Amino acid sequence: MRVNGQSFRTIWQADASGDVAVIDQTLLPFAFEVRTLRHVEDAATAIRDMVVRGAPLIGVTTAYGVALALREHPGNDSLAAAIETLVATRPTAVNLRWAAERMRHAVAALPPAERAARAYAEATAIAEEDVASCAAIGRHGLVLLRELAHGKGGEHINVLTHCNAGWLACVDWGTALAPVYAAHEAGLAVHVYVDETRPRSQGAFLTAFELGAHGVPYTVIADNAGGHLLQQGEIDVCIVGSDRTTATGDVANKIGTYLKALAARDNGVPFYAALPFSTIDWTLGDGAHQVPIEERSAREVTHMRGRASGGSLEEVEVVAPGSHVRNPGFDVTPARLVTGIITERGVATASRAGLAALYSEHERH
Amino acid sequence: MRVNGQSFRTIWQADASGDVAVIDQTLLPFAFEVRTLRHVEDAATAIRDMVVRGAPLIGVTTAYGVALALREHPGNDSLAAAIETLVATRPTAVNLRWAAERMRHAVAALPPAERAARAYAEATAIAEEDVASCAAIGRHGLVLLRELAHGKGGEHINVLTHCNAGWLACVDWGTALAPVYAAHEAGLAVHVYVDETRPRSQGAFLTAFELGAHGVPYTVIADNAGGHLLQQGEIDVCIVGSDRTTATGDVANKIGTYLKALAARDNGVPFYAALPFSTIDWTLGDGAHQVPIEERSAREVTHMRGRASGGSLEEVEVVAPGSHVRNPGFDVTPARLVTGIITERGVATASRAGLAALYSEHERH
Repeated sequence: MRVNGQSFRTIWQADASGDVAVIDQTLLPFAFEVRTLRHVEDAATAIRDMVVRGAPLIGVTTAYGVALALREHPGNDSLAAAIETLVATRPTAVNLRWAAERMRHAVAALPPAERAARAYAEATAIAEEDVASCAAIGRHGLVLLRELAHGKGGEHINVLTHCNAGWLACVDWGTALAPVYAAHEAGLAVHVYVDETRPRSQGAFLTAFELGAHGVPYTVIADNAGGHLLQQGEIDVCIVGSDRTTATGDVANKIGTYLKALAARDNGVPFYAALPFSTIDWTLGDGAHQVPIEERSAREVTHMRGRASGGSLEEVEVVAPGSHVRNPGFDVTPARLVTGIITERGVATASRAGLAALYSEHERH
Repeated sequence: MRVNGQSFRTIWQADASGDVAVIDQTLLPFAFEVRTLRHVEDAATAIRDMVVRGAPLIGVTTAYGVALALREHPGNDSLAAAIETLVATRPTAVNLRWAAERMRHAVAALPPAERAARAYAEATAIAEEDVASCAAIGRHGLVLLRELAHGKGGEHINVLTHCNAGWLACVDWGTALAPVYAAHEAGLAVHVYVDETRPRSQGAFLTAFELGAHGVPYTVIADNAGGHLLQQGEIDVCIVGSDRTTATGDVANKIGTYLKALAARDNGVPFYAALPFSTIDWTLGDGAHQVPIEERSAREVTHMRGRASGGSLEEVEVVAPGSHVRNPGFDVTPARLVTGIITERGVATASRAGLAALYSEHERH
């Protein structure tokens, strides 16, 4: 996608030497800077400090981290140490482990002299697969948006989204935002209502930044405002991402998603989750009771980071001192509230039968 | 209610001379300071700068403002100028106009020498009526909380509330929080989940402060978290205030209320609005289409005030620069989602028949 008219991905090979470049997402939306990763430790630090975030991007950064390690030392010790270092950065990130294992599998049987080149090729393949998957989600979602646009006779389609499931969380296109970008590229008039997404403000920080930088019209709203806008007919469709979706179509996503799904249903507005196959957990059938919900740091709620009048980034305390805080990171939207699941293979109904029809090779019986 | 073990109201006559004292709510929750109002201009400034806020408290401050004016100059010009000054502070505040007219009516026919004393008496009466009304809401709500406590066998009752409809918005007790304080005073184990209430954070700032200062256990959550907690069975009842309620029981309240009502209904949790008769607009029958919703300043969303590490209050920018913003201040919860309306006369079903049964003298036919 574009930033200041220039095409970017979130991660890319910077030059022939094999250095890797990433966008520093900790500085967004107030500054846009590219960082160069030269050693596996740089990749690990970038993941740990959330210079890169979002499951797909973390996976690709892990893959390039292994390649950076093998560029310096292609031996078995180096490979093992690199994987250990990377996996330790965010121990619960499933995609990180998956990418690390895929890299190990790709290079372990090769003679050391051949490993670095193979590692770069594999990391690039992982990145390209993610781009292709997101682009396919965009194409399938575009069909839905075209139908809505047709129904509105060319007026703006208003999309509500929550959190950041855009290209900044992936390599390009994104998941929930891929249909929006596809529609924008296709010349459809599309406008996005962006939930702020407290406590970490990924909507106000990242989704707002990436839509604005690419030139898609958008409006930021407090998380509280979506119900009113849905009630007043100002939203045509909701599209969100997912962190984990059950085999039955229950959608775990950023805290607050469930509230918007309820409001969409109450007002007859379609509500879609957009996600690649890797998000589907075929072992789970009851999201609300089976998906473990991470309780995150109270400080995310009690303090807020922003740009002070002098231009520097500052953290201010925004809750009465001494308050007890709960901070669940995700919630589960039951399948009954989900109109459909947009995947790289097409749009499924949010049900075991619907997902199994698209992914017959994965479904457990 | 109590602050640091001492009993307070939000406004009171400070001494025999007629000076008036208020809690400076602009400094909460980071500092607790009392300000003295000596002239009508002090009262006007306190309203304009939101040193005092909340419809009932604004009304009482207006009344005392008229008294302060008449203490200095009891003539007709002084009375007219005082009312003009006060009404201009927040032109849309219905309660402010109502209090000003009531004060005019109380003193206009009196000889100037008798006006000041009568004005103080009338202002005090308005304050006491509000306290009595809130206390009655508390008693009626307590009955509901006792039933819930009985059902839980003495375990904590968990109440979810939104925004600040506590004693800081009134003179004492509050509306939505009056049943909570009544339960706490009665020895019931009650705990409150407090929505942060973006964009103005009245929950994290004011509700958290007043519950903590009085000694009621509470937990602050992001506005996004309530749906998850309701789904997980962690909330027994929702109680909110109201800015305007239709004759049919549709409840206009702080933006985001509707989302919590939907989640309460989806999980079989009772949802109550607590409000005095003055909140009911007998002329309206369809809240979602008839209640005008104020669109507030974008800056409330794009900037956030908090305590910096040095201890000073600072404002930081918390939305991607250049973003378009929508900021509706209120939303409407349809009566079908409201379990009951707790008023000073008892608990009504949220319907024309329910409200008319309590207020037969007000209902239009």
